[in-house]
Amino acid sequence: MTQQDRAHATREAILHAAAQEFDRLGYERTSLTAVLARAGLTKGAFYFHFPSKEAVADALVERQTELWAQVRESWRLRGVDPLSALHGMFAESADRMAADVVLRAGVRLNADREVGYPGVPSTHLMWEKLVATYVIEAAERGDLRPGVDPEAVARTLCSAALGSRLISSATTECADFPSRIREVLGHVLPCITAPAWELSGSQSASEPA
Amino acid sequence: MTQQDRAHATREAILHAAAQEFDRLGYERTSLTAVLARAGLTKGAFYFHFPSKEAVADALVERQTELWAQVRESWRLRGVDPLSALHGMFAESADRMAADVVLRAGVRLNADREVGYPGVPSTHLMWEKLVATYVIEAAERGDLRPGVDPEAVARTLCSAALGSRLISSATTECADFPSRIREVLGHVLPCITAPAWELSGSQSASEPA
Repeated sequence: MTQQDRAHATREAILHAAAQEFDRLGYERTSLTAVLARAGLTKGAFYFHFPSKEAVADALVERQTELWAQVRESWRLRGVDPLSALHGMFAESADRMAADVVLRAGVRLNADREVGYPGVPSTHLMWEKLVATYVIEAAERGDLRPGVDPEAVARTLCSAALGSRLISSATTECADFPSRIREVLGHVLPCITAPAWELSGSQSASEPA
Repeated sequence: MTQQDRAHATREAILHAAAQEFDRLGYERTSLTAVLARAGLTKGAFYFHFPSKEAVADALVERQTELWAQVRESWRLRGVDPLSALHGMFAESADRMAADVVLRAGVRLNADREVGYPGVPSTHLMWEKLVATYVIEAAERGDLRPGVDPEAVARTLCSAALGSRLISSATTECADFPSRIREVLGHVLPCITAPAWELSGSQSASEPA
């Protein structure tokens, strides 16, 4: 292992240990001491990589932001219709979060920055807007039932995804998030889609892309 | 005003001021100093009524618990079918929360005790179980579409209600919670109900019972 490899491994170990604490306890109740104990590292080793707890949280938030961009791009490249892409992205997100505490912590940290901090521009509204673009495109293709409001659909899906994540996180460390998100999609999509619409693309729970 | 009336008014003023802070900031970031400043009271007046910040939070949680019991009972007395009662209770809850910061704070405090505190028996699972009893009863009456899983429906509705409340709270102090919850119900119920099922009972947004 080169020195660079070792530095990279230490940085990843810090991120992983911090993610485990943030995921369980949230930002405010996570202590640097607990993170160091979990990673088996000294304060010196930590501060070589990150100036503060906040900097680790920022790195985790940034990593999830990058991942969502990749997930969106991978579904764009599959060329499926917008609602199938939306279904695929929600399901894949849940699969990845159930499997990866680093991602899960980043998502929690990002969302916690909003909820209960009035006046902060909301990540949730940003997600609703993004989801709405897919549903609007579906409407333009004739994939929606007449009279369905695309923005209302986006609000319902984003709310249900947020609530599912929180309940799943509090009760099963997100282990049942994949099945919960698929239940939500199964309860909403048949209601809003035109009879001819069919789900396409790989949607298997065991096959996150 | 008798002394008893004045004591009652002070206690309510404390609950209201504390609710405003808890609703905005959550339990941990709410300071007693801010609550006293908001209520225009001294520490002495506060401690006459409550031994601690925790005791005020407990009173707010208890108040919302009592209210939900009343709401359930009032819908039981209307004698509508279980899914109409469920619709009515979700809508009425949102209406009441949008209008009443004391209730909203109690709900937030109660839910915050769960999310992110692993191992605490979950209020969310308790709500899911309660909602499921209505959906199961609907299934037994033939109000559900064949193949619909009542417990999955309960999970979807509770998730969407939680997410709606959090997003609405973070962005509009719950002002749009009534419309958000009705959107959720409108996107889920037609999907899961038998074609013959129809909503009954008063469901008006302007008419919380």
